[in-house]
Amino acid sequence: MDEIIEEPGAGRRSRGEGRGAAARRASRSGGGSGPAMPYITRKIQPYNVLDEEGLQLIEHNADIVLEEIGIEFRDDAEALELWKNAGADVKGQRVHFPKGLCRELLKTAPSEFTWHARNPERSVRIGGNATVFAPVYGPPFVRDLDGNRRYATIEDFRNFVKLAYMAPSMHSSGGTVCEPVDVPVNKRHLDMVYTHIKYSDKPFMGSVTAPERAEDSIAMAKLVFGDDFVENNCVMLNLINANSPMVFDETMLGASKVYARHGQASVVSPFILSGAMSPVTVAGTLTQILAEVLAGASFTQLIRPGAPVLFGTFAASISMQSGAPTFGTPEPALVSYGAAQLARRMGLPFRTGGSLCASKVPDAQAAHESANTLNMTLLAGANFVLHAAGWLEGGLAACYEKFMIDQDQLGMMQKMAQGVDLSESGQAMDAIREVGPGAHYLGCAHTQANFQSAFYRSALADNNSFEQWEIEGRKRVEERANTLCRSWLDSYEAPPLDPAIDEALLAFIAGRKDSMPDAFT
Amino acid sequence: MDEIIEEPGAGRRSRGEGRGAAARRASRSGGGSGPAMPYITRKIQPYNVLDEEGLQLIEHNADIVLEEIGIEFRDDAEALELWKNAGADVKGQRVHFPKGLCRELLKTAPSEFTWHARNPERSVRIGGNATVFAPVYGPPFVRDLDGNRRYATIEDFRNFVKLAYMAPSMHSSGGTVCEPVDVPVNKRHLDMVYTHIKYSDKPFMGSVTAPERAEDSIAMAKLVFGDDFVENNCVMLNLINANSPMVFDETMLGASKVYARHGQASVVSPFILSGAMSPVTVAGTLTQILAEVLAGASFTQLIRPGAPVLFGTFAASISMQSGAPTFGTPEPALVSYGAAQLARRMGLPFRTGGSLCASKVPDAQAAHESANTLNMTLLAGANFVLHAAGWLEGGLAACYEKFMIDQDQLGMMQKMAQGVDLSESGQAMDAIREVGPGAHYLGCAHTQANFQSAFYRSALADNNSFEQWEIEGRKRVEERANTLCRSWLDSYEAPPLDPAIDEALLAFIAGRKDSMPDAFT
Repeated sequence: MDEIIEEPGAGRRSRGEGRGAAARRASRSGGGSGPAMPYITRKIQPYNVLDEEGLQLIEHNADIVLEEIGIEFRDDAEALELWKNAGADVKGQRVHFPKGLCRELLKTAPSEFTWHARNPERSVRIGGNATVFAPVYGPPFVRDLDGNRRYATIEDFRNFVKLAYMAPSMHSSGGTVCEPVDVPVNKRHLDMVYTHIKYSDKPFMGSVTAPERAEDSIAMAKLVFGDDFVENNCVMLNLINANSPMVFDETMLGASKVYARHGQASVVSPFILSGAMSPVTVAGTLTQILAEVLAGASFTQLIRPGAPVLFGTFAASISMQSGAPTFGTPEPALVSYGAAQLARRMGLPFRTGGSLCASKVPDAQAAHESANTLNMTLLAGANFVLHAAGWLEGGLAACYEKFMIDQDQLGMMQKMAQGVDLSESGQAMDAIREVGPGAHYLGCAHTQANFQSAFYRSALADNNSFEQWEIEGRKRVEERANTLCRSWLDSYEAPPLDPAIDEALLAFIAGRKDSMPDAFT
Repeated sequence: MDEIIEEPGAGRRSRGEGRGAAARRASRSGGGSGPAMPYITRKIQPYNVLDEEGLQLIEHNADIVLEEIGIEFRDDAEALELWKNAGADVKGQRVHFPKGLCRELLKTAPSEFTWHARNPERSVRIGGNATVFAPVYGPPFVRDLDGNRRYATIEDFRNFVKLAYMAPSMHSSGGTVCEPVDVPVNKRHLDMVYTHIKYSDKPFMGSVTAPERAEDSIAMAKLVFGDDFVENNCVMLNLINANSPMVFDETMLGASKVYARHGQASVVSPFILSGAMSPVTVAGTLTQILAEVLAGASFTQLIRPGAPVLFGTFAASISMQSGAPTFGTPEPALVSYGAAQLARRMGLPFRTGGSLCASKVPDAQAAHESANTLNMTLLAGANFVLHAAGWLEGGLAACYEKFMIDQDQLGMMQKMAQGVDLSESGQAMDAIREVGPGAHYLGCAHTQANFQSAFYRSALADNNSFEQWEIEGRKRVEERANTLCRSWLDSYEAPPLDPAIDEALLAFIAGRKDSMPDAFT
């Protein structure tokens, strides 16, 4: 797809005001605890766990899987017909790929592209040295600010969109930040997409639970960005999970086809709990992931050459004792590091990681597991990071307090990604000369000149003395996060939205809702 | 120093039994939740944040610091005399080093050596691809199992030595695991060294708070290992902090001289809170660290060429708002990664990191900060890791619960360090063929054959369903850690110690204690 650098919605009339002013205001209002950060441009190198020989071995094995075992496309006839025409060997729903076919098809996929926000200042790059964080995706439950665990509602959904909008280190609004189960299942995508547009101006994701819901997402995006812009630029990233092992189901293929047809991005992600959906080994899991991604990602290019597509990897393991999913453990980290290397060799943007954990509360287990995952995510060089904040309980619950704690950690990753400043000021030889042996740097000129930006400043960490901490009520970090979260939600201000667009969106939603009966399953 | 591979204590008489049998029993009894792990031999690569140009720049700047600014050696005349004779320019206590002098002296320092334990099966390698974990060092307080924060006692000291002995992922017994403030300050080192010998058979550290306490540590080690063995092998690692910026004080130099003279290892560690003891920048801090280590480490070679010495780095920052130390933030991680690179180029073993945090309780803040530090520690390729478990509250308190949580994480690092198994079993192609699209791997032959060792198994993480977790009492990880800690301490069994050695140690201690009045300051 061509990268048409065009003002979103340009040419649409009845705008209440110019986009530039709105953007500037939105930029100011977005920072919950500081100015909004742009997406990350990594200046540090990715970390590698496989050498050339290992990479070639896994690529060779994945080719064998694709050719000899094959991948199932559980779709209507269209997908299978497309594969037949492309030269694959199709037996029932099983597609066998001649060596090199998938890689050949993927040559048309962009290695980098822009994911456009309705506020152009919030648009982000996907690929290369860019890293973009997005909130947790998919939880049916929330752990709310009163410590209750309950089903999520559209109000929770709205709150997490607001928090993601306000979090300086969060670069996108995400997608299904939680499942608003109080809205009929066949209509909730309309409210979700609307909420992203209305309450945030960061880039958002589309619905993937049915082809018609993907079409609705596209239609709503067109009301915001304009028809031509959407058809020629990426305004939505869309999560297309493989049904591992080695299956793409009808729902995911249906959504992927819609998005690819309209030039929107698919994040093709094997969803792997090693030991259940893949072998118990890292190399075996990587082989299967690579085969699945090669098949699923190249499929988007059959639909529309040039459609953006990501190499996705959701990696966790199961407990071999209980079968329960585990997070933050070493083996999935090795999988993600390895998958990132395979993606770079393929020239596709890469998605993995986040702040994953199995814990039921935002305790030290949650933090250890999340930090193990998040440190890996940054160093692996992930380009798109779903579940970067708010994930609790194996993804079953979105947690307000954990969202706040996680977004603080994302800010640290952003600083880490800047690497070492080797400028003259960075070298600080003047400071070392000025201070000399036995003195201190607190008051020296270099410190005075740089103290504002010197170190990442956490809004949640308590670094005070024990005595001061006692005086302040012996609070744990989740209590401080709770307070900060309430204050953000209280002070939230929506970014401006052209009333005409708002009206058009509401009218579209009303029409679509009227056209179908409520469904809750 | 020659690596004399000699059985510790060989030739000493009056041993109650052969060392082999004792070692085997000790090995069995050591594992609190599983078999003891050997020290880590990393199969993964270290992570680099500086390129060749950056490294050369910092080395160049450090040479300027050494030559033009100089380092203060606040010692009696001996150190200054040694430097004069070596060709340095000494003005008062300030030593200026001609370019290349320190590096030339360091050519005699070993790049790898063995740190011997009284049980040879517990001896560890320091340097190269080896990583060795040690407990927290130095806290005057403990956070005990009843949740109280109080001054540490010799009983706490004993408990942490027991826990370090039982923790499968802990490779050494450490040093001042906490300050036993109920023992006179001038006698406490005797009880500390004795406790390490009596209650553990893992390698331990010596006292550095005065030259005569270092001599006592040596004397006690000789009662265990034999005179010749000690003089020719490393049986103690010893923490020699620089008094940053650019000062080595009399206490540290005194201890370092004693240990180097007896061929024992010095861990020369600039203790850096950036912004106070070093510039606010990463590159400036690295320059100062390198200069300090070059001076302090090469000094050990003036005392005894070949004495083992480590490039140490304790890196943290201060809050520029409050002046309080902060941990787990990005800037010190960059410092440690960079320092590791500088150490590798110098051919010295490297010490950094641990499980550092500022939090007052083992909450998510503690865990995030610790995990950020620990992940960096492993990937930086640290050879010796002090504070690997139990550190709380900026190092002011040793926490029982956090010790248990941390040691679980150390086990994860150990697994991570194994990297990706690319053997035929690792590739798992048979499993992928057997299972095929749409099935699962739970029962396949490959999974059955490998499930025991497939994934790191945490003894503390709760991966169960929310409902199961509720039934089990809604416990946070520190509650589970508390229970596990109590059960370890209840089931502790001391490793065997030759009664004759025990008697000799107790007699030595009694004699030394009788020779001086109690001092508490």
